[in-house]
Amino acid sequence: MDIVIPLFRLFEPLDAIGPYELLANVPDARVRFVAPEPGRIADVLGAMRVDVPTRYSEVESCDVLLVPGGAGARLMLDNTEFIDWVRRIHETTRFTTSVCTGALILGAAGLLKGLTATTHWLAMDDLETFGATYTAERVVRHDKIMTSAGVSAGIDLALGLCALLSDELTARAIQLFTEYDPQPPYDSGSLATATPEVVARARELASGG
Amino acid sequence: MDIVIPLFRLFEPLDAIGPYELLANVPDARVRFVAPEPGRIADVLGAMRVDVPTRYSEVESCDVLLVPGGAGARLMLDNTEFIDWVRRIHETTRFTTSVCTGALILGAAGLLKGLTATTHWLAMDDLETFGATYTAERVVRHDKIMTSAGVSAGIDLALGLCALLSDELTARAIQLFTEYDPQPPYDSGSLATATPEVVARARELASGG
Repeated sequence: MDIVIPLFRLFEPLDAIGPYELLANVPDARVRFVAPEPGRIADVLGAMRVDVPTRYSEVESCDVLLVPGGAGARLMLDNTEFIDWVRRIHETTRFTTSVCTGALILGAAGLLKGLTATTHWLAMDDLETFGATYTAERVVRHDKIMTSAGVSAGIDLALGLCALLSDELTARAIQLFTEYDPQPPYDSGSLATATPEVVARARELASGG
Repeated sequence: MDIVIPLFRLFEPLDAIGPYELLANVPDARVRFVAPEPGRIADVLGAMRVDVPTRYSEVESCDVLLVPGGAGARLMLDNTEFIDWVRRIHETTRFTTSVCTGALILGAAGLLKGLTATTHWLAMDDLETFGATYTAERVVRHDKIMTSAGVSAGIDLALGLCALLSDELTARAIQLFTEYDPQPPYDSGSLATATPEVVARARELASGG
């Protein structure tokens, strides 16, 4: 079972690594990172450089495509060779999935036209420019296309995907192995629960303030 | 504000990258990864290699030390130079923290003697060999020492730490930015909630089955 996660300059690390942690524990799964050019890929937070040996174009098919987001995802929207590759790979997958603003890449590839989908709350308007309807769900699935909300939502997507790729017992075992029994000390993780003051501060942080 | 995360061969990726994602968003925080030797560090899941330019011994003090786990954490227990460094750095920190079996490293450095602490549920007996008392909490804090349970628990530790390093409003904003509003599709994330069948399957997976 071949799971492919494209990384690109300025990717959001948890978008990619949360799902990777869960999916790599699926029996017989092989996860591969690919990149626009083989070599060191720097994340958006500035401290992590991942060495990716494989160019995406070396991959011609896979079982699961998982596209992370981050500031770099927006930069990839103009890369027509990459967007064409996403569209082509999608024809070969069992599941085509995104985390956070990775949904914009699926959108640019024309995969979300006429569908409800989710992405980072800061990108809801951008998502709709691709003909999708933003919905404030954690994970949205239409057959083999799954999108998830911002950053940490990829973990919920991946846990559901573990069951689809193996079985529910195995997915639950992966949940226990990763002790995914979340107990956030605050309740500000969505626009529905955050106060206007928290939303304002988050916008400030997101714009580098 | 200097936050240091040691990586080592066979580290568990989400242990390190979950907290990294949140802590790097704290205003004025700088996160640095360090390693036993500068160069490419391979994770325990087999697909990720992180390029770490800094040897741990180049760091003489920091505000936060966060030690991840994974199979590689156990291998580091015999590295007396590294364990001595952890003990020495601890004297300089505002917070000394661990995720998953990273707690064993704090234990080997003598930092958990006589304290309650937490770690991955599969490592509870090992933790107690260092004079700590395992407690099945998500995060355990004694003044400046914080330990968290397995893998994904580091995210909860980090969110609490964001508030300690900045303020609650900023921590909540980081929670919103990372959309940390977890909605796991299953409820098997702890020994308290998993069925015996799930526990057995998790042990099987952990032993490579």
